Amino acid sequence: MNQDSLSQEVSGQENTSKDRLRLWLRVLKATRTVESAIRENLRQEFATTLPRFDVMAALTQHDEGLKMSELSSVLKVSNGNVTGIIERLVEDGHVLREKVPGDRRASRVRLTSAGSAEFARQAAAHEAWIDKIFAEVTPDAAQSMAEALDGVARRLDNKDSET
Amino acid sequence: MNQDSLSQEVSGQENTSKDRLRLWLRVLKATRTVESAIRENLRQEFATTLPRFDVMAALTQHDEGLKMSELSSVLKVSNGNVTGIIERLVEDGHVLREKVPGDRRASRVRLTSAGSAEFARQAAAHEAWIDKIFAEVTPDAAQSMAEALDGVARRLDNKDSET
Repeated sequence: MNQDSLSQEVSGQENTSKDRLRLWLRVLKATRTVESAIRENLRQEFATTLPRFDVMAALTQHDEGLKMSELSSVLKVSNGNVTGIIERLVEDGHVLREKVPGDRRASRVRLTSAGSAEFARQAAAHEAWIDKIFAEVTPDAAQSMAEALDGVARRLDNKDSET
Repeated sequence: MNQDSLSQEVSGQENTSKDRLRLWLRVLKATRTVESAIRENLRQEFATTLPRFDVMAALTQHDEGLKMSELSSVLKVSNGNVTGIIERLVEDGHVLREKVPGDRRASRVRLTSAGSAEFARQAAAHEAWIDKIFAEVTPDAAQSMAEALDGVARRLDNKDSET
């Protein structure tokens, strides 16, 4: 740590609010750049979209299927958005809709075996893209980044639950 | 650095592609959480949206104004999206449209003085929100995070320009 950042840490505020803003803008820029590369790869190699990929990823974690409301809350998007995505995945034969016993109005969705197989291919490719993109990030930098970001997310999640 | 991460760094691959994927998912989750807090704050405190805030931020950097096409490319969004945002900002009296001398079809947009004053208030609040959210991130963690993410963004930008 050099003299500047040391005195910053001791004296607190002033400089660091600009530093934090700059850090956030860099995080945001990098995230958007990576996300747009992923979107493009999904489109070119699998003719699919990031929201569809995210829905399939969520369903992979739940063999017994999820209600639409559960899926929305897992994904933190609105029911309306998820409906359109599910319709498309049903058309593609990747997702099945089932009745929920004892709840006449609810349906549950889950991956078909074709959907599972397709998602396995997409997930492997996705992992390889990320591996390549993050290749230069050292384990140490990764560790401190992950801890810092988890702290940020936790801070906001706690704030949410207070209100 | 512990034995595990050391041997990982020496032997390379295998474990680290999962680690990198996990890191990316944490980055993404934290970014989305922060972004949604910012959206909510902008809505509640300024009755505005993140895209409008981003457009005003871009115009603040260009006193002489920007053509719509320049604005789209600065923001990396489509012309169509920017048009709707600008229309709303013009209605609000925050942005002016002007003719471009020598180019009959193009117009340039810039902030009005009311827009500049409004954005200054929003930007100060935004900086304070970020400062609070990132309060626990140490300067060291911030530094290594910023460097790692810049490397990631650079890697992808170079790839883009090759194709």
